[in-house]
Amino acid sequence: MSTRPAFDPALVTRLRAALAPERVLDDPAECIAYGYDNSKRVALPQAVAFAQSHDDVAAVVQLCNEFASPLVVRGRGTNTTGATVPVAGGVVLSLERMNRILRVSPGDRLLECEAGALNGDVQQAAAPHGLFWAPDPTSLGYSTVGGNLGCCAGGPRAVKYGTARDNVLGLRAVTGAGTSIKTGCTTTKGVVGYDLTRLLVGSEGTLAIITEATLKLLPKPQGTKTLRACYADVKSAAAAVARVMNQPETPSALEFMDGDAVQLAEAYRPTGIPKGVGALLLIEVDGNEESIDIALRAVTAALQGAGLVELRAAANADEVDALWACRKALSPSLRRIAPKKVNEDVVVPVTRIPDLVEGLAALSAKHGIRIVNFGHAGNGNMHTNLLVDPEDPAQMDAVHACLAEVFRLVLDLEGTLSGEHGVGIEKRDYVGWEIAGDTLDVMRALKHTLDPNAILNPGKALPGI
Amino acid sequence: MSTRPAFDPALVTRLRAALAPERVLDDPAECIAYGYDNSKRVALPQAVAFAQSHDDVAAVVQLCNEFASPLVVRGRGTNTTGATVPVAGGVVLSLERMNRILRVSPGDRLLECEAGALNGDVQQAAAPHGLFWAPDPTSLGYSTVGGNLGCCAGGPRAVKYGTARDNVLGLRAVTGAGTSIKTGCTTTKGVVGYDLTRLLVGSEGTLAIITEATLKLLPKPQGTKTLRACYADVKSAAAAVARVMNQPETPSALEFMDGDAVQLAEAYRPTGIPKGVGALLLIEVDGNEESIDIALRAVTAALQGAGLVELRAAANADEVDALWACRKALSPSLRRIAPKKVNEDVVVPVTRIPDLVEGLAALSAKHGIRIVNFGHAGNGNMHTNLLVDPEDPAQMDAVHACLAEVFRLVLDLEGTLSGEHGVGIEKRDYVGWEIAGDTLDVMRALKHTLDPNAILNPGKALPGI
Repeated sequence: MSTRPAFDPALVTRLRAALAPERVLDDPAECIAYGYDNSKRVALPQAVAFAQSHDDVAAVVQLCNEFASPLVVRGRGTNTTGATVPVAGGVVLSLERMNRILRVSPGDRLLECEAGALNGDVQQAAAPHGLFWAPDPTSLGYSTVGGNLGCCAGGPRAVKYGTARDNVLGLRAVTGAGTSIKTGCTTTKGVVGYDLTRLLVGSEGTLAIITEATLKLLPKPQGTKTLRACYADVKSAAAAVARVMNQPETPSALEFMDGDAVQLAEAYRPTGIPKGVGALLLIEVDGNEESIDIALRAVTAALQGAGLVELRAAANADEVDALWACRKALSPSLRRIAPKKVNEDVVVPVTRIPDLVEGLAALSAKHGIRIVNFGHAGNGNMHTNLLVDPEDPAQMDAVHACLAEVFRLVLDLEGTLSGEHGVGIEKRDYVGWEIAGDTLDVMRALKHTLDPNAILNPGKALPGI
Repeated sequence: MSTRPAFDPALVTRLRAALAPERVLDDPAECIAYGYDNSKRVALPQAVAFAQSHDDVAAVVQLCNEFASPLVVRGRGTNTTGATVPVAGGVVLSLERMNRILRVSPGDRLLECEAGALNGDVQQAAAPHGLFWAPDPTSLGYSTVGGNLGCCAGGPRAVKYGTARDNVLGLRAVTGAGTSIKTGCTTTKGVVGYDLTRLLVGSEGTLAIITEATLKLLPKPQGTKTLRACYADVKSAAAAVARVMNQPETPSALEFMDGDAVQLAEAYRPTGIPKGVGALLLIEVDGNEESIDIALRAVTAALQGAGLVELRAAANADEVDALWACRKALSPSLRRIAPKKVNEDVVVPVTRIPDLVEGLAALSAKHGIRIVNFGHAGNGNMHTNLLVDPEDPAQMDAVHACLAEVFRLVLDLEGTLSGEHGVGIEKRDYVGWEIAGDTLDVMRALKHTLDPNAILNPGKALPGI
């Protein structure tokens, strides 16, 4: 953890001169609102600055270098890992006012926007042209494009359309050293220069501050259809996932719930899942009026196999809601039992899902912690929920011991510690378990090159930065 | 251009001790075969080393650092930009013997191989599982995965499936500093650590030497169908391209020929193209038995519009050949007129294709150089061919003047100077036209971080490295 360096109030004066007096807060009562995010962690910044342009960002970066002040960029703080909590104090730079859609070029399937633009506003600007931007995190209505890029946001439809990294063409940014850069291009192909775009995507504001983005849009399918498949056990369901992913009609969502998740949801609000179901898949396919039925048939065929207990297709909107009801009931049911549950975000290769769920069951028994799993099965991305109270110190020793073993298990299965939530503070100390020391040293050297005074988001993403 | 530093023959002795005597060549008569590539350029390396393992590569990098010797990694030298020509002399490190497929995990849709594995061998290993790797450069039968990654290879089906960058999960590599690193993960989602994978992809061996790769495989569609659409002019064809790309049934190839390209091909071998055609599109759609017809109908509908002169669909394999015949006749027809033609590889947003082709016609007239255009229209990737003899000094002044204006035109149209061929030596001096000085400085700083002694592939990819 970074130590909290001394803060020179002259920085506030200089920031106010550079931006405008009313665009810099330093009253703790006002600053605190910019000190937390969806991780439920909090730390007080000494100042909050509001940028309205790329040049504002450049000016703030320059001043923070001059004063050696930590600088944490922030969209709407919807991340769950503490990535925007200013643990070392200093300045939080909010991009919420840099929210303009700069242009939409439908024929070129691209949209340019400022980093503070809401994902939902991007979707709204793209929709009249029959286009959409792929990342669909749960927070999309109120999370920013810059935040989505900084954390490499995914969501259910990543299984077909990829994550933020796969759907960005170029960026404008200010490095930690204060250099204004423009990365990538406006086209889907381009191999001139090094790929700085994807170096910044997922770097959680530790290398540079993204100020504008050129997003790759995709043509929006006319409709979706929904299937729900119940299996006797996780192994059968995982085998079905592999079959679905090995045929060309990739579904637009392929969600998984383990048996315990199903039972919890059913206990909260019964939705007619057959008894004894060990795993459930929710599948959406998309396409035009004709192609969607073909996709539906292909996926239906792939879902058939040993262990299939029940397969239902929704015939209309009400039936869609009915099929999703079990999944929708899960979050409230979990909240009722463990309002502050620990929600992990691990990934394993699809064929290792059964080993993961089996291993987690063993860890659950060993540590006396109920573990419920659901997630984006097509990518092997599992949200592993430990139903505990993180504020009960008696439980937390067991939780930490259990989590450590969960991460070891994931890595033994050739997985990765985060699929879409990112590292932030939450997983920073485990990154060294996944990435070898020499490779981490290279990452730290790149960090030092782009942010030589280590002002950008100290204490996040990588251990030792 | 890098100067050619003095070469210490003791390096050969040390390389032989580190690898094996027979795995290091220093006879110029033998070395010369590793001094050229498909750019038709040549430079003699002082030694050629053959690696058989990651550790061999690490040993060679260490020795080249010790001797401050240039080190150029090489697959099969199929690139067209001089990216593997050892212009500064030194050591060429051939990975042709590191050609093993390490494993295929069909349920996880991944394949691991050494960097010297042939793209064609990868396809052969994936095919029995109904899978394929997306990059399909013309050279795929004999180009290596490492070369494909180093240059971010594309090909016609990139329009649907992306380029090398979009189809790689992780890498093993040795940086210029000699550090062994492992990047990425084995899953399609993963956000732990910085994205070193894509930093290396397309960096043309200037940052690190890729030794192994984990490739993302895709399910192979059961079949393809072919369409050929002839338009009165480029504008109509480009509008059709935008329409095709703006509906969800993305074709697996969407190739373009301008009117002059069509006429040249027809003059070489008539294939029944209607007279007066100003642009031609060749389209492939893929899918399973049912979905392919739907894709065909959707794309057919999108191809309809102002300026469409003729639209033909192939009913069988012979007709497929007939539709492609005009495109296939183009290369020999160009070779007959200008065996050493200059083949560029520029990209513009799809809606700017007409401006590009119109602008090129004006430059053709101005410089008295025949220019013929064809390429991957769905990505706006145009292969612009200047039909000249590069060995005729009288022509080359005009060629250089014309090329400079071509590049200015592409950049004015918000394009990029290379879509898939890369920079190498050919375009190095133009990179600064596309990428601003400050951004280039950041790239050079990253180069210095990863390759502090600047031994890796000097004189390539970026000016001033």
